Amino acid sequence: MSPILTQFQRTRFAASSLAMAKGDSRNEVLASLAELIRVNMAKILKENQQDVARIATDHPMRDRLLLTQERLGALADSVISVMQLPDPAGQVLSKKTLPNGLELSKITVPLGVVGVIFESRPNVTIDVAALCIRSGNAVVLRGGSDAFHTNTILVQMIHRALEKHGFSTDLVYLMPTDRAHVTTLLTAVKFIDVIIPRGSEALIQRVRKESLVPTIETGAGVCHTYVAASAELSMAVNIVVNAKVSRPSVCNSLDTIVLHQSIAAEFLRLVAVPLQNYSVKIYADNVAFETLAQVSYPFLERATESDFGREFLDFACSIKVVRDLPEALAHITNYSSRHSEAIVSSDEIEAKFFLSTVDAAAVYWNASTRFTDGGEFGLGAEIGISTQKLHARGPFALEKLVTEKWIGIGQGQIR
Amino acid sequence: MSPILTQFQRTRFAASSLAMAKGDSRNEVLASLAELIRVNMAKILKENQQDVARIATDHPMRDRLLLTQERLGALADSVISVMQLPDPAGQVLSKKTLPNGLELSKITVPLGVVGVIFESRPNVTIDVAALCIRSGNAVVLRGGSDAFHTNTILVQMIHRALEKHGFSTDLVYLMPTDRAHVTTLLTAVKFIDVIIPRGSEALIQRVRKESLVPTIETGAGVCHTYVAASAELSMAVNIVVNAKVSRPSVCNSLDTIVLHQSIAAEFLRLVAVPLQNYSVKIYADNVAFETLAQVSYPFLERATESDFGREFLDFACSIKVVRDLPEALAHITNYSSRHSEAIVSSDEIEAKFFLSTVDAAAVYWNASTRFTDGGEFGLGAEIGISTQKLHARGPFALEKLVTEKWIGIGQGQIR
Repeated sequence: MSPILTQFQRTRFAASSLAMAKGDSRNEVLASLAELIRVNMAKILKENQQDVARIATDHPMRDRLLLTQERLGALADSVISVMQLPDPAGQVLSKKTLPNGLELSKITVPLGVVGVIFESRPNVTIDVAALCIRSGNAVVLRGGSDAFHTNTILVQMIHRALEKHGFSTDLVYLMPTDRAHVTTLLTAVKFIDVIIPRGSEALIQRVRKESLVPTIETGAGVCHTYVAASAELSMAVNIVVNAKVSRPSVCNSLDTIVLHQSIAAEFLRLVAVPLQNYSVKIYADNVAFETLAQVSYPFLERATESDFGREFLDFACSIKVVRDLPEALAHITNYSSRHSEAIVSSDEIEAKFFLSTVDAAAVYWNASTRFTDGGEFGLGAEIGISTQKLHARGPFALEKLVTEKWIGIGQGQIR
Repeated sequence: MSPILTQFQRTRFAASSLAMAKGDSRNEVLASLAELIRVNMAKILKENQQDVARIATDHPMRDRLLLTQERLGALADSVISVMQLPDPAGQVLSKKTLPNGLELSKITVPLGVVGVIFESRPNVTIDVAALCIRSGNAVVLRGGSDAFHTNTILVQMIHRALEKHGFSTDLVYLMPTDRAHVTTLLTAVKFIDVIIPRGSEALIQRVRKESLVPTIETGAGVCHTYVAASAELSMAVNIVVNAKVSRPSVCNSLDTIVLHQSIAAEFLRLVAVPLQNYSVKIYADNVAFETLAQVSYPFLERATESDFGREFLDFACSIKVVRDLPEALAHITNYSSRHSEAIVSSDEIEAKFFLSTVDAAAVYWNASTRFTDGGEFGLGAEIGISTQKLHARGPFALEKLVTEKWIGIGQGQIR
């Protein structure tokens, strides 16, 4: 067996010790981890600088990678907040006695070993490890090579916290960053129970294609907001602008504005001002293009087919004008990545039809798609936003880091 | 787009009509289906004969494929029993108002389009279609070519039942049986929400390797029963014999008997008689071999490494004698397919340790592994027994044919 597989086996073995440890002792590990992060800030920042220094000053990755005293403080706080969430394992989901006397219960148990593949954000290392330790899971982390020094020192802190409370450091394993080892992880069905890719569409596609281990897909969000004929336009402007500009680099930000033809011109004139302030580039269909050209919108292009269903992750969006609700729904069905979708409308029947028809992890009526987030939903830190339908949909947070187990207690029952 | 993909798209489109239809009208379809099966028995049996006639008389597949009046009656009954189960969709899982006034609820909704790949049992066609219709899902069925005529007439009945109540026949699509089309199904991420393979290990491996659509693995069961030192031996004999012989061709039947050394010889002498009556072939480790040779057990072979972790699906099993509970647990961890595992013991502490340590969909104390079954568990008909940890574990029945959807209702909230 390769050294990596041998380590996976050790992690699998260690997982049962954590699963059986009481929630209190797992929380003691987290308390120590938060303290270690605070006490060792200077040391962590020094390692982080080694990574950051290799990135060009104007590259967006630099900010994603950068840790500061403030960010480390927030990271320690988030570890403490995970401690305060209820233990998702050990819940009795059902309990009954079958006619033959067999006592049958279904309980939640930790998943086992969780594999997470992520790119440059080093906070993922701490967030994911904290969530896994809290829920009794072991974790294999495969971070990006750009964050190598940062991830290494952070995992050192995690190992020291585990050791302090008598747990094996095998519970949290940071893999080497060679690309070839990703395949080892994706095919280790015997040792890894679930793999969660966090990052670019290319990463998710690779995992989907190669993984033999069950996977939770997270990430890609092509999010629409439909402004209906009955919409209160000032509210629609607020929602659309917020959904686009409050944090364009994240998956729940707006990508396409869908407009009912009857309010399109008026809405566009209103929304043009704030969007222009944020230099939002607009890829407009022909109808919207005319109106925006009339008001001399400066960052305007004609949309091509590829601008619909496109995740912009930047100060940019596309606009589609539709005849009616059915056309809006057809457009969304066709281009949505089933992450977050919204309608702005004053018509309850129309809005409820939209909410029940649109197939997405989260659907909103008169609210911004930016709310799709574990923290906002009151679930605590999340491992990602699941855009698939099995197991977890939407924020994949602590409560979903468990599976079920059926337990039958008999007195000799046979079938 | 290929004709198959075009049909998938129609099925995807039809799915929303079924999801929104009230549970009552979906149940009317099922009532009509049960009636159509009863009324058209002669016609169905004639088509079934065309399939059965092509199989050699002594081939076990012949019995799996064969329909009789009695079996069709039971099939119609099972459709009626699915009607009586509660609708798994439309359940409110959580509901709260966030501090900003956003009303957030999480509800269950149908999965959408379920793909099922199965082999020769024609009852799967009706069971799966009934479960999907009941829960508001559309379904793509890919049955084995051996059951082609039978599946075709059964899907005709389903289509007549759908049409009678104004539903699109696109909701249940029976694919052509060409092997190449399986790949089309496994890669149709845009149209299929989940794929469930039912059948041989080879089929499951292929699906695991090729599928880009999320999958629920079902089937392979390598099941152990550990007879502990404190076991009541007559109970242990009953349980072991039942687990092995009551239906050896199914996934929850026993494959390996694990014996504590202190009771091994006595237990083997007791169990040899009934196992011999059923001509059960035993692949025994060295210790067990000695004892069974002494009592001249007639169907005896020395176990090789490959006889552990082997799913026999026949009147055959392997036997492993262990020093103590830890060795038993290590053996089971190493060879189990995490389906169903049992301990026979009179020691509560030992039994509870076993129940919490063994990682399987179902674990039993003093009961037969044969109980792992949707019907036995009171869940109704099942699509299969899931041996993975995501979404569904153990019987994958009606209640799991749903996903979640977050619905946020606001008055203009932004983040």
